[in-house]
Amino acid sequence: MSKSRISIGMLGMGTVGRGVYRILNENRDGIEQKVGASIEIKKILVRDITKDRGLDLEQGLLTTDAGDVIDNPAIDIVVEVLGGIKPALDYSLKALKHGKSLITANKDMVAAHGKELFEAAEDNGCDVFFEASVAGGIPIIRPLKECLAANRISQVIGIINGTTNYMLTRMSEEGLNFGEALAQAQSLGYAEADPTADVEGYDAARKLAILASIAFNTRVPLDQVYLEGITRITAEDIKYAAELNYVVKLLGIAKESEEGVEVRVHPALLSKNHPLATVNDVYNAIYVCGDAVGDVMFFGRGAGELPTASAVVADVMSAARYQLRNVPGIVSCTCFAEKPIKPMGLTSTKYYIRLNVADKPGVLASIAFVFGSNEVSLASVIQKQITGHAAEIVLVTHRVLEKNLQDALKIIKDLSTVDEVSNVIRVEE
Amino acid sequence: MSKSRISIGMLGMGTVGRGVYRILNENRDGIEQKVGASIEIKKILVRDITKDRGLDLEQGLLTTDAGDVIDNPAIDIVVEVLGGIKPALDYSLKALKHGKSLITANKDMVAAHGKELFEAAEDNGCDVFFEASVAGGIPIIRPLKECLAANRISQVIGIINGTTNYMLTRMSEEGLNFGEALAQAQSLGYAEADPTADVEGYDAARKLAILASIAFNTRVPLDQVYLEGITRITAEDIKYAAELNYVVKLLGIAKESEEGVEVRVHPALLSKNHPLATVNDVYNAIYVCGDAVGDVMFFGRGAGELPTASAVVADVMSAARYQLRNVPGIVSCTCFAEKPIKPMGLTSTKYYIRLNVADKPGVLASIAFVFGSNEVSLASVIQKQITGHAAEIVLVTHRVLEKNLQDALKIIKDLSTVDEVSNVIRVEE
Repeated sequence: MSKSRISIGMLGMGTVGRGVYRILNENRDGIEQKVGASIEIKKILVRDITKDRGLDLEQGLLTTDAGDVIDNPAIDIVVEVLGGIKPALDYSLKALKHGKSLITANKDMVAAHGKELFEAAEDNGCDVFFEASVAGGIPIIRPLKECLAANRISQVIGIINGTTNYMLTRMSEEGLNFGEALAQAQSLGYAEADPTADVEGYDAARKLAILASIAFNTRVPLDQVYLEGITRITAEDIKYAAELNYVVKLLGIAKESEEGVEVRVHPALLSKNHPLATVNDVYNAIYVCGDAVGDVMFFGRGAGELPTASAVVADVMSAARYQLRNVPGIVSCTCFAEKPIKPMGLTSTKYYIRLNVADKPGVLASIAFVFGSNEVSLASVIQKQITGHAAEIVLVTHRVLEKNLQDALKIIKDLSTVDEVSNVIRVEE
Repeated sequence: MSKSRISIGMLGMGTVGRGVYRILNENRDGIEQKVGASIEIKKILVRDITKDRGLDLEQGLLTTDAGDVIDNPAIDIVVEVLGGIKPALDYSLKALKHGKSLITANKDMVAAHGKELFEAAEDNGCDVFFEASVAGGIPIIRPLKECLAANRISQVIGIINGTTNYMLTRMSEEGLNFGEALAQAQSLGYAEADPTADVEGYDAARKLAILASIAFNTRVPLDQVYLEGITRITAEDIKYAAELNYVVKLLGIAKESEEGVEVRVHPALLSKNHPLATVNDVYNAIYVCGDAVGDVMFFGRGAGELPTASAVVADVMSAARYQLRNVPGIVSCTCFAEKPIKPMGLTSTKYYIRLNVADKPGVLASIAFVFGSNEVSLASVIQKQITGHAAEIVLVTHRVLEKNLQDALKIIKDLSTVDEVSNVIRVEE
């Protein structure tokens, strides 16, 4: 080890950047002792140097010129916490081309451009680490890549969006409807003014694409992740689910079978006995099944200034260790296989179906007949009268092909006795 | 990278050894692709070569001569799965002296002789990894050493003995008493014929000493871990605990405060809302609090052939990666601090106390008076009549100093109105 100092350049000084700065300063002694070198933040790219950040920053630390970070020969490791694709990707690729290792918390960029980043790192003898891009401070990327590396992973199921988990928890515990839960999440700062990325599942899809790529050693394109948000979940669905011994969660599910890799983000009924079922509020958790390890779960805070920065700084420490010994690429891209994505129609799960129907003889029989003739068999039925002549039916199917279920639903929607297919939610065992 | 083949020697071919052999063979493709080299088991030390192991083993693979493994210049990495101190420690030290990296699943050896092993590794340019020594397949050692390395850890609380967790789960769910639960655990192969190491907490203490040493960067001697087993826990205690909204778990608890490091293994009442409370049956889990990450938990199977071997093989893969690049010691011993162990008398928790008393006026007052004059304040009291003239009182204290509680109990035991102090169990928040 010739070098005893590692210099960091940061791109961005928002919530996570601030956390990185704080941890590197407040826990400096332990961090430097573990790495075996001093670690110094040399330059931080910001938009506005004069803004009060509540930190006592050294003169000259902030810059508005990205070149001071990415082209600066004195900087060894670049921490990208800008978020988004532009200009984060350009900056990141330039930093890598200059041989600087890259630590990023940017799920959008890693999910969409992981390949370019890894190739640039490999070509230029440096590393890309992105633990913070999935599930904040929870160790999951490195455990998957290293600790569980001896396994064939068969499935990864995650609660990987804290905002929606908070909302579903409130809907479940207090009977709030979607709008009320969203307003509460917004007032607490858990949800953005425009909550689309969270409630429509885009955020979870990016994280799932990253997790699935690592778990199955194949690049999973973001646009191949099946996506359904939680906007159609009602307090009634959650109440019926509870009667059936399920909770409702927004899950990111990735499974491998002979037909390919299945990747889907959608709300699901989950058995109350599943280890993920008790993961509430803003907590995240990722459940992994491997052929050797069996089932393991990683639980913690999936977002926030310090939790996310905890993962970033750990990655900085790893990158520093490898750089000090000049051994980049020890843990590099593991997408060495090319596996097909399984078409959604070929996936199979159980389904929860809530219907509004006319309350007269023969209705259930006609519905059951349509399901039966599409190879959809029913596991349980709850029927409740809602007004004088209307009834609500809640069905749970056995495990069926998605395609068969959708075929059956098309016919059922048009039955004269069916007023509305109120909701269809997958059931995960 | 000059080398493209890594040769393994194994010490022992019991349950875990068999698992290592199976995983290395069954998942060979993925493992070798990730490591970037072929991995071959060259020699396995066994006691009896002729024993049928249910595996199709190559001629000449087994040996009864330890030298064929530890002195063999063709072997790069030694996997020690003998268990116990003798002869595992001698063999391990010799292997390290010959520059072979050591992978061990041996909690006894690591807890008692970690320092010697690490020093031998450092002196001879090789590595010691021991992920499998704590909590089987659950990634915890590497996550603590690397993924959470930016944190100051304030506490580690673990359910790290599957046998006792299984027994306590049965006692809780089926109302079994200790003996019945033990018999059931034995009949399922979860408990040994002599269950002492599990039920008296020795097994958990070894794992806790290892975890605490890593979490707090100071060597925690095994003999300084406070120890209480579960033999005195009754179905009644579990029932009362449930009434008070607690579950009973055997916990390994390590905390750091200004007075030093606190390390204790004992049964405890744990709030039903704690993430560890739903960890049942033979599952293990480790809950960690860090100043940056907040609380995280790692959950999974803490024992068994393949789960434990999953951790061993992952360590083999890491050791191979480092050996191929000739960079030992990247993640070495992190016990760089020397912190005192906090005397048990200075620890403070809440307590659950169950007493048999005479059912007459003034009894509770006299007990409460003794507690009060020893600065033990009470949070709740349940009193139940058991026979005509005897009553059972269950008290829960506020957080008090262990020393004060023990002083009070000495006096209470001798009160004429107190027949018996039936049980005293700490309450963990």
